[in-house]
Amino acid sequence: MCCDAQLGEISKGENVARDKEILALNAFDPNAAGSADPELRAALQRRMRSFGSGSVLFYQEPIRMVRAEGVWMHDADGRRYLDVYNNVPSVGHSHPAVVAAISRQAGQLNTHTRYLNDVVDEYAERLLATFPDPISQLVLTCTGSEANDLALRIANAATGGRGIIVTESAYHGNTAAVSDVSPSSWPGREPPAHVRVVPAPETFRTPGDDIGARFAQSIEAAIADLQRDGIPFAGLLVDTIFSSDGVYADPAGFLAPAVELAHAQGGVFIADEVQPGFGRTGSAFWGFARHGVVPDIVTMGKPMGNGFPMGGVATRPELIDRFTAGTKYFNTFGGNPVAAAAGLAVLDVIRDEGLMDNASRVGGYLMDGLREIGNRHIQIGDVRGSGLFVGLELVRDRETKAPAPEIATHVINGLREHGILIGAAGPFGSTLKIRPPLCFTREHADIVVSACDEVLKTLPI
Amino acid sequence: MCCDAQLGEISKGENVARDKEILALNAFDPNAAGSADPELRAALQRRMRSFGSGSVLFYQEPIRMVRAEGVWMHDADGRRYLDVYNNVPSVGHSHPAVVAAISRQAGQLNTHTRYLNDVVDEYAERLLATFPDPISQLVLTCTGSEANDLALRIANAATGGRGIIVTESAYHGNTAAVSDVSPSSWPGREPPAHVRVVPAPETFRTPGDDIGARFAQSIEAAIADLQRDGIPFAGLLVDTIFSSDGVYADPAGFLAPAVELAHAQGGVFIADEVQPGFGRTGSAFWGFARHGVVPDIVTMGKPMGNGFPMGGVATRPELIDRFTAGTKYFNTFGGNPVAAAAGLAVLDVIRDEGLMDNASRVGGYLMDGLREIGNRHIQIGDVRGSGLFVGLELVRDRETKAPAPEIATHVINGLREHGILIGAAGPFGSTLKIRPPLCFTREHADIVVSACDEVLKTLPI
Repeated sequence: MCCDAQLGEISKGENVARDKEILALNAFDPNAAGSADPELRAALQRRMRSFGSGSVLFYQEPIRMVRAEGVWMHDADGRRYLDVYNNVPSVGHSHPAVVAAISRQAGQLNTHTRYLNDVVDEYAERLLATFPDPISQLVLTCTGSEANDLALRIANAATGGRGIIVTESAYHGNTAAVSDVSPSSWPGREPPAHVRVVPAPETFRTPGDDIGARFAQSIEAAIADLQRDGIPFAGLLVDTIFSSDGVYADPAGFLAPAVELAHAQGGVFIADEVQPGFGRTGSAFWGFARHGVVPDIVTMGKPMGNGFPMGGVATRPELIDRFTAGTKYFNTFGGNPVAAAAGLAVLDVIRDEGLMDNASRVGGYLMDGLREIGNRHIQIGDVRGSGLFVGLELVRDRETKAPAPEIATHVINGLREHGILIGAAGPFGSTLKIRPPLCFTREHADIVVSACDEVLKTLPI
Repeated sequence: MCCDAQLGEISKGENVARDKEILALNAFDPNAAGSADPELRAALQRRMRSFGSGSVLFYQEPIRMVRAEGVWMHDADGRRYLDVYNNVPSVGHSHPAVVAAISRQAGQLNTHTRYLNDVVDEYAERLLATFPDPISQLVLTCTGSEANDLALRIANAATGGRGIIVTESAYHGNTAAVSDVSPSSWPGREPPAHVRVVPAPETFRTPGDDIGARFAQSIEAAIADLQRDGIPFAGLLVDTIFSSDGVYADPAGFLAPAVELAHAQGGVFIADEVQPGFGRTGSAFWGFARHGVVPDIVTMGKPMGNGFPMGGVATRPELIDRFTAGTKYFNTFGGNPVAAAAGLAVLDVIRDEGLMDNASRVGGYLMDGLREIGNRHIQIGDVRGSGLFVGLELVRDRETKAPAPEIATHVINGLREHGILIGAAGPFGSTLKIRPPLCFTREHADIVVSACDEVLKTLPI
């Protein structure tokens, strides 16, 4: 989530100056004019006093959030917001089944995995059952960042290589090692020596039906470049819906040639499912499954516990064996029974409430609605995605497809006025990223489409 | 917690072979004889199937834990154990105030820090009030590992250096970058190029009243060695009670010359408070405070949320500014309101139940009791520590002070038979590490002392 355009994930856009203004797209700027609301001013001062420049807030008038349920969040003034931004509370904010599971287990036992505990083992079995063979073992962590950090170490142990290939606006997490493979964390800078950056499998500005071959070619070139520099190739790491690159889901299957190539060159394929995983794409539980590929390593995070901090790595037993043969790894909070109980409740709710199917149906309905208003708003350059992970591309001009981050900012702030929370992504910050809780309905989709329609009518052009 | 001798944190002991046996001191070995208990056997098979060689379990007959409250944990057979091992549930297992806070807040709002929320800001203020000037700002993470990973990056931004000095059996966490500065994660191997390892400020085998000067001298030599290799010094990173090195607390103040030296050489001092913090040492809320020093960066974890996954970095505003000037950092789950509510409850309980004072009193009483039985058990080489962080050093011979990891293993397993959970630490795995929940009473201490007495009578020598 870190590399949202709200934080600024500008990478190599030719037409976009990488100045502070754009990097901070829609982030609160403490140096800008203060708020007129004395309570908000006091809350902001309090936040800045304790967190200083490490504080990252949305909107120039940040929201004081107090409660949330389902798809709705409520601020301190009693105003409610339709949440199409936050993909962590994936089964719905404050879902009673998840809250009950956390409360029950926290009152019973919260300890580490050095003791046996049925809740943890049941969760592991239920989670592993969602993966294709031969992915059959798990390491539980506390965050997606820890999962990707561990995945890099497993890849290194498996291949002996360190060279990692990622896409140009990718974000994979916040540890030192994972920041190295997150180009959106170092916009405009050269990659670390062991990292190669390839263009995202972008189908909007570079159309054509050869996206799979094109993506594989760029990876082949990157591997060759690593080899020229004497850096053995370890693997290809991608978010399987390319969220931070601007949401690229189709055509399903385009990842296959890249994965095949990575394997042929002795590397592993790491599928970062922190964003697309747990049914969000509607047509499959995992983003990689849409592409008909089987990763060597899968990493998970955000929606796993619906907000309870948990992450994980699933892989083949022999990869875990190779890693543990050389390294001791233990995660104190990882796999604690409370996390496992939260995770089990999430799996139950996804199944019992039919959320994958809902994501598929409502996501399709939402995309249809957005395409329909695209007929009268030339700024809508593209509507794409899968399930309830939708990218709405804003352009200055449909012919040139020039990215319009300033229109994205206008829409983000305009939707906020309409009581809708949304963010942007992509190398230019011009892709609105729609990823609401999976209990989103057609009525909620109508609200979003209609508000987008209204806001786009008010463009100050 | 990872480098407990139960996992094996053998480092450079001259007399101890670093073979698999000792490295796995008291860990479950799946290749050893199976259990006679069919239910346990089934539970073990289930665990190994999902977690494989990544699974780390205590005891050759691992415990199937089902519930816990206060200082007691209960297994599936209805047996209870006095917990003197687990320092995460620091205010007591399943503490009702913490459980209530988690339940209440999870049902209300669980989101990230890009919105304002009073619970998070109240927690930050309460936590920061425990630090001396000029430590006044905070970054919240999900684990102590994430905190130490971030601290290394802040130290690098502050100094321009990468060279880190740590003690020889130190453990600071599990990310790639933090494993590099955790010698107990790579026993017997050479340190990474940017890491220098110094002897712990060990007062048992190397007595003398000059421990502060001695420790500073070894750091001076390490800095010089970094300089010779052209690696600019970034900082000194220590656990302020040297838990994994075998628990070295006294004399209070011995850290001061080392910190002064690190500063004089342009480095920062990072106090890892993941284990000693939050009142455990009795005489101060933070381990560094016992030494009269003010760190540049403080890292926190384990007991912070009494089991709710949370960690943090506290430092001076200018260090956060230097870091954020060059790097974007955001932690999705870090500082979520549920973590903040848990953290607030922990601070409340420590204050309202007088747990620091209790740690001081009961810790002193426990050490007196252990020293008393030391009069009749020559295997007790030393009893040391502060508050409820106690090290019990087991030796073969008081004259030679030869470390006795085999006796430690015997006692760990013997105490388990007496219904007491305990682990070991130190370079030889010969230091029993006693760190119960802080609501530990004299009656509980009596149980431990009496059981140690009994078990030491049964040594198979």
